[in-house]
Amino acid sequence: MKEKIKSIVEINDNKKSRYFAFFIQGLILVSVISFSVETIPNLKPQTKFILQVIEWFCVIMFSLEYLLRIYVSDSKPKFIFSFFGIIDFLAILPFYLSFGIDLRSLRALRFLRLFRILKLVRYNRAMNHFTTAIKSAKEEILLFIFITLMLIYFSAVGIYYFENEAQPEHFSSVFDSLWWAIITLTTVGYGDVYPITVGGKVFTFIILMIGLGIVAIPTGIISSALTKSVDKKHHDSEEN
Amino acid sequence: MKEKIKSIVEINDNKKSRYFAFFIQGLILVSVISFSVETIPNLKPQTKFILQVIEWFCVIMFSLEYLLRIYVSDSKPKFIFSFFGIIDFLAILPFYLSFGIDLRSLRALRFLRLFRILKLVRYNRAMNHFTTAIKSAKEEILLFIFITLMLIYFSAVGIYYFENEAQPEHFSSVFDSLWWAIITLTTVGYGDVYPITVGGKVFTFIILMIGLGIVAIPTGIISSALTKSVDKKHHDSEEN
Amino acid sequence: MKEKIKSIVEINDNKKSRYFAFFIQGLILVSVISFSVETIPNLKPQTKFILQVIEWFCVIMFSLEYLLRIYVSDSKPKFIFSFFGIIDFLAILPFYLSFGIDLRSLRALRFLRLFRILKLVRYNRAMNHFTTAIKSAKEEILLFIFITLMLIYFSAVGIYYFENEAQPEHFSSVFDSLWWAIITLTTVGYGDVYPITVGGKVFTFIILMIGLGIVAIPTGIISSALTKSVDKKHHDSEEN
Amino acid sequence: MKEKIKSIVEINDNKKSRYFAFFIQGLILVSVISFSVETIPNLKPQTKFILQVIEWFCVIMFSLEYLLRIYVSDSKPKFIFSFFGIIDFLAILPFYLSFGIDLRSLRALRFLRLFRILKLVRYNRAMNHFTTAIKSAKEEILLFIFITLMLIYFSAVGIYYFENEAQPEHFSSVFDSLWWAIITLTTVGYGDVYPITVGGKVFTFIILMIGLGIVAIPTGIISSALTKSVDKKHHDSEEN
Repeated sequence: MKEKIKSIVEINDNKKSRYFAFFIQGLILVSVISFSVETIPNLKPQTKFILQVIEWFCVIMFSLEYLLRIYVSDSKPKFIFSFFGIIDFLAILPFYLSFGIDLRSLRALRFLRLFRILKLVRYNRAMNHFTTAIKSAKEEILLFIFITLMLIYFSAVGIYYFENEAQPEHFSSVFDSLWWAIITLTTVGYGDVYPITVGGKVFTFIILMIGLGIVAIPTGIISSALTKSVDKKHHDSEEN
Repeated sequence: MKEKIKSIVEINDNKKSRYFAFFIQGLILVSVISFSVETIPNLKPQTKFILQVIEWFCVIMFSLEYLLRIYVSDSKPKFIFSFFGIIDFLAILPFYLSFGIDLRSLRALRFLRLFRILKLVRYNRAMNHFTTAIKSAKEEILLFIFITLMLIYFSAVGIYYFENEAQPEHFSSVFDSLWWAIITLTTVGYGDVYPITVGGKVFTFIILMIGLGIVAIPTGIISSALTKSVDKKHHDSEEN
Repeated sequence: MKEKIKSIVEINDNKKSRYFAFFIQGLILVSVISFSVETIPNLKPQTKFILQVIEWFCVIMFSLEYLLRIYVSDSKPKFIFSFFGIIDFLAILPFYLSFGIDLRSLRALRFLRLFRILKLVRYNRAMNHFTTAIKSAKEEILLFIFITLMLIYFSAVGIYYFENEAQPEHFSSVFDSLWWAIITLTTVGYGDVYPITVGGKVFTFIILMIGLGIVAIPTGIISSALTKSVDKKHHDSEEN
Repeated sequence: MKEKIKSIVEINDNKKSRYFAFFIQGLILVSVISFSVETIPNLKPQTKFILQVIEWFCVIMFSLEYLLRIYVSDSKPKFIFSFFGIIDFLAILPFYLSFGIDLRSLRALRFLRLFRILKLVRYNRAMNHFTTAIKSAKEEILLFIFITLMLIYFSAVGIYYFENEAQPEHFSSVFDSLWWAIITLTTVGYGDVYPITVGGKVFTFIILMIGLGIVAIPTGIISSALTKSVDKKHHDSEEN
């Protein structure tokens, strides 16, 4: 009996297991969409009721799935404290927690409900590919993050000195200037803050020239790591 | 007779075939430009008349070409239901359909007329190159699209929690926040919506740092696939 | 005598030739900066006079240099009609042409004066490196340009259908929509035009997802061509 | 005694040296944050006092560290005039200089205090990796900077001719147009200046098409140099 359930719940090549996985994935999608719809202001009471029913149904299904997964696991504590065990638990927890007296203060916890979407990851084997690539380039990525943070900080301090006097409302402190530095160096450029002094414009130009090079680095790191990871995969499959 | 027409209509190395292809390509360009000009508001009646004549001429030529292609094809149904057979048909269909009583409601269908431009693809052999590259990286591209969509969704939910209270007109629901997430993560940054709270700004920074890495992934995938495809082409041509 | 001048004017390893090249390069820079300063509105008469003197000096020097180059060239017509012969001529032409009756109408021709800066290219050997890379990827670059133009056109037509009714002032015709398409797909995003309808926003999202992939292609093409070109250079120098 | 201090101050594998490095790094972070907080306008007197105390403590510690580093160095003048010797000195100098009569005029020198953060670089060996990559691609990076500057200049002159008449307040001279050229070619696109004439828009399109290719070049250069540097590192470590 336990073996039969296990062959369905855990990923296998049999048909029933695939139907089960599709059903759970569909439910995750439904629950994610229904959560998004819930945030629309001024919903009709009927819509709210339907969303409530969908929420109930999803949580019951996810709870059953969670219990089944515990039941079929070889080592129960190992599953419960595994990455996906915790995500499965967090995906249903906010619902049960919101049964209480002060519902409104607990609402922020419903944000955790989003972890439900992470379950999608479980079913995707191709993910390993990326994980390998990111692991092999871990060092370089950390160094890049450090360099980027330093560049952003220097840009913020620099622009603060150039623009603070001319635009005290936008560049009131280094922290305010940090927002400009982030939006400029990522080339997003919303246009809410930008330099107006000649010094600030020349400084922006220099920072952007350096910034383009900095942005080129992670692109290089990740793409080279990914290419290596693909090469290795093909190489391994050819050897076998 | 049929063989003679076939040698002209289908792509060959003889001169007549090349002239025919250039003529059809020129007509496609003329029809695309005349379609664009037609959308300009407050055109003079003379201009409208000239555009109408151009449209008539193009459609007659394309119709003749379509019938010739059917005539010379070895297997008629195979051509009609091939990718280019359907595009050729859709390129002339809107014109004939707009002959009717309620022309205005059918106007949206004229959008299909744009498929005419896709005919340009037929004559370009170099396209195969890209098709090979994209096919070989299909899996990775799909996974990237999935990861990107997940990142966009999480960003939208996150910013909704941070900005909803401060800017209810711009971040009224998760769906509204999705627009911000797309425009920010692609670094377009129109500047119509942007965070104003400290939490939202810090969240934007984190999301952008991750987003830069995500954008780096497809660049890596496509460029490595393309390099391999070019390498293989050169390798194959050297072997022969 | 002619041989002596030739050894100075044409690029050589001797000192005099290097001094001459540095002098001409300096003059080019001076003339470029003085041209830029000239565009500043409301200049003082003294400044205008100084700029006039600089202009006269530069043109006299460039004219002398041009005549010397013709004098020392082995085949005079070959030099005159070579790429750099024409650029050298165009660099001094606007000055002589502006001596006339109707100076104002000829002003636009002064734009050609900028070609003077192209002379800088002559002295840069490392340029060959890039030229090789671009030549080897010519086909792919042309195909990319074609695909990009097609994508921009489709984007413009699509957004025209979605936004024309809601914002007739910004998306009045396909030509107006083209501006939006260019600024959005290059991720510049000035924020002067952006979609406001739900359909237009969803369409923008889809177009941007495709656009990111398209932008990844030239990056891949150029960087792989450049890498090959560098590899070949190192390989050749190792062999010798 | 000197040897014992040296083993702590200079980077070693022993525990005390690591604790010392962590302590100094922590102080650098504290001093950087306290410097940023100081720029916030309208701080309370208590906060100002605390920041003053932190500043005093940091400077005393950095001064002690600087003296210790001089004491333990084999060649004193060599350390003092080394890159990090100068940075260490500049990191404490602004504090001592601001003890004077006219403090306000010396304030700009406090900008130098930021060099303190550069000390973080000392402790990061992985940095070598990037330095190697950048050194090997020095030539190409210089050429790219030259090409980019030329493209920016041409773009500025071009847009000046197209937009000067229509928007004399935004494109008043070539220097003003340079700001537009930088913000557009880096795809930041704040939206403070953008072309409004048809000619200017077409020109922007052409410049952006070229610009995308130009941006692709440094990405290619840096990522290929980085890949080579990583390959070499792995190769070297395998050989040993």
